This record gives sequence, structure tokens and C-alpha cells, in this order.
Amino acid sequence: MLPVPNRFALVTGRAEGETPLTAFDAALLDAGVANVNLIKVSSILPPHAQPLAELVLPPGALVPIAYGRLVSAEPGTRIAAAVAVGRDEPGRFGMIMEHTAYASASEVEATIRRMVEESFTIRGGRPREILVRSVEHVVERCGCVFAGCVLWYGG
Amino acid sequence: MLPVPNRFALVTGRAEGETPLTAFDAALLDAGVANVNLIKVSSILPPHAQPLAELVLPPGALVPIAYGRLVSAEPGTRIAAAVAVGRDEPGRFGMIMEHTAYASASEVEATIRRMVEESFTIRGGRPREILVRSVEHVVERCGCVFAGCVLWYGG
Amino acid sequence: MLPVPNRFALVTGRAEGETPLTAFDAALLDAGVANVNLIKVSSILPPHAQPLAELVLPPGALVPIAYGRLVSAEPGTRIAAAVAVGRDEPGRFGMIMEHTAYASASEVEATIRRMVEESFTIRGGRPREILVRSVEHVVERCGCVFAGCVLWYGG
Repeated sequence: MLPVPNRFALVTGRAEGETPLTAFDAALLDAGVANVNLIKVSSILPPHAQPLAELVLPPGALVPIAYGRLVSAEPGTRIAAAVAVGRDEPGRFGMIMEHTAYASASEVEATIRRMVEESFTIRGGRPREILVRSVEHVVERCGCVFAGCVLWYGG
Repeated sequence: MLPVPNRFALVTGRAEGETPLTAFDAALLDAGVANVNLIKVSSILPPHAQPLAELVLPPGALVPIAYGRLVSAEPGTRIAAAVAVGRDEPGRFGMIMEHTAYASASEVEATIRRMVEESFTIRGGRPREILVRSVEHVVERCGCVFAGCVLWYGG
Repeated sequence: MLPVPNRFALVTGRAEGETPLTAFDAALLDAGVANVNLIKVSSILPPHAQPLAELVLPPGALVPIAYGRLVSAEPGTRIAAAVAVGRDEPGRFGMIMEHTAYASASEVEATIRRMVEESFTIRGGRPREILVRSVEHVVERCGCVFAGCVLWYGG
């Protein structure tokens, strides 16, 4: 089987670009995950996974990540992205949620906390700890917000 | 290279939720694949891959899967999903197809059998065996159907 | 961590099909990547990655790939896809871009060269070498163009 990640990092980014693709690429740069090959996954924190103090990814590496992004080309529009990790007991797996909206950072944070709680409710549990990171951006020309949870490996 | 899967399992699920995301998560729970990191792939059954009698996935594992899903928030609507695996000779690779529609389970099963046959025709072959699993659901509030082929590993 | 690819191959394909899915499958066959499990990645060429003289993929393998595709069911429509790899210095990572449009091959090639240059500009560099492959197709009934960069492994 593929190796199960045992580290994670919550990352966010925001940027302007000439085009949606450029803006997204620049937001990935801002988040520190632009120079790798992102593999989108749905979205469980492995048991015992520990947060990374510093995220150092080899260029070109295959990097599992759960993420959300939002691009807007409407000047003046406020856009936001959030990512959250919820865990109940040490040693159990956790839930990862991503959310983006035409909203403020505090609004997407409120929403994502509810989403994490719902995902535990459906599994008959309750999160004891929720980590959240969010970002907001007011579009100038073509803007992008990005929030993700990198799943990674460490010894 | 990444390890080639040698086991597979056809899985289906259906569920109601508060939101499309919750409904999808609940359908994954119903299918037995909610607590892992799904990696979507397009969609070949490796040669010699054997069906799993029992699907046991470590929480948080990276799990290759070909899948389809359909969410509807129209009460009373019938939705269905099917997954199929076709093989011709033992030892050759097989074809995996997924299909979802506003239809009954028997309708998506008929469609997916044709899809598997077409995929063999295009490769100059003919399936000797087609395995199909399907699920249908009448939406109450916000419903989701899900069908997939997990690619996995066994000794 | 997952093994970092050290080989790459630019591939293109075009085909007609009965349905969009069949056309896509046939375009993958034309490109030589139909009988594997494609894992879509965003899109960095690992340092020191070398081009493959011949692309031989084991059936059912998990194959990281950055790709674009376009399907049209409008007879007479011209569609095109291009993939490009840009590198500056030997030993540094490179940028992979994909692009599809209702256009000719030469038009998507021009666009993708600009995209590669922009992706270097944003990183404060300049590509010394850009490899491009493109394909165009005039739709008969239901046509598909496909262009991708396979990331692979070699000794």
C-alpha cells in the first residue's frame, strides 16, 4: 500500500494574478506549496499524525493534500478560504475540512467549525480540539484564496 | 514507481445529509470508505487483481479509487449510481466504469454494462465477465448515492 | 513519502467516440496512456527528471500525470490541446503547463509558451528551454483532444 502520512501542516495563501491559473499558482507560492505535485485527497487526518513545525517539501515531490480554493475576477469582492482539523482522542484519526466563500475570514472560520462538528456527529463523536487556519482577500483584478492541509511524512 | 494494487472491492453507499458535503460524507460511511484519504484514479483493474472478501482500510490511508457520485436536494427524486468491472482473460487487465444518473438502479446497471462493453470493443476485445454493483435512493431532503471500485493491496 | 518521479514524457491524443467518455478513453489510447490508473497532479517537473525515449507503462499502474482535455460534440469544430515543460538550469525543478481551447494547434502552442514564461516570471526566473507538444482535431461527431505530461520512474 501507499505509505500512510504521519505529519500534517495547515497552509493558506492569497494572491493576485493575470489569469485565474496564474492567481492560483501565486496563491500556492504564498502558501508554500507551489513547487510540488499536489495530489488532491478526501480528507482524513491519520491517527498519531503530528503537526509540522516547518514545512519543507522537496521540489517535484508527490504531496497528498486536502484543499479548497476560490478565484474571483470581480474587483472589490471579498473572498476567503479556511481549513480545519478536528480530533477527539489522541491516537484516533481526525477530520479535515476545507471551505471557501465570498465572505470574510471570520465567517468561513465559523462555518468550518460547524462542518467539523457535523462530521464528528455523523460518526457518533465530538471533537475535543479543532485547529483552524483561514485567509481573506479583497480582489484587485484577479484574486485567489487557498487553504489546505498537507499530509506528509517525518521520522 | 508507486506500488500496483492487486486487490479490489466494489462498494456502494447512499445517505441523507444536511448539506451536499455532509450527504457525501455519510454516503462514504455507508460504503465503508469514509475514514480514509480517497485518491481518485481513472480506471483500470490491474492484471491478476483479486476481489477482497472483506474490505479493511487503515484510517487515514491513501486509497486509490475510481468512483462516481450524485447529490440531489430535490425531495422525491430518484438517483442511482453503479460501478462495474469487466475482464476478458485471466491475467489481463480489466476495465472499471462508474455511472450515476437520475434513474433507477436497474437503469444505471444496464447503462454501465454497455459502457464496459464499449471500452472493450475500442481495445479490440470482449468482456467475459462483468461484475456490477449499484445503489438507488429517493431523496428526502439532500441525498447522495456513491459507487466506486477501491484498488488495494493484499499478500 | 511517495517516491519522486525522475522521468517524464509529453503525450498527446485525439479521437472520436460515441459519447464524451468513450471519446476521452479513445484519446487516452491514442496517447498511449489508456491502460493505467491516471492520478492527476499539479504540475512540477522534479529536478533532474529526464525525458523517456519510450513510454512503457505496466497495465493498471498508478501513474502521476498533469493533463488537459477538451471534448466537443459540435461537428466541424476545431479543438486543440497542448502540454509544455519549461526548465531554466539543469538540476532545478521545471514547470509543467497544460492548455486546451477551441483553436488550432499553433494557437494553443503560442498560449502555452506564454503560460510557461509567466510561471517562471512569478518565481523570479526565466525558462532556458521549453518543450511543447500539441494536437488538434476537427470534430466529426464527438471528439476529444488530450495532452499531458506523464511523471514516471527509471533507473
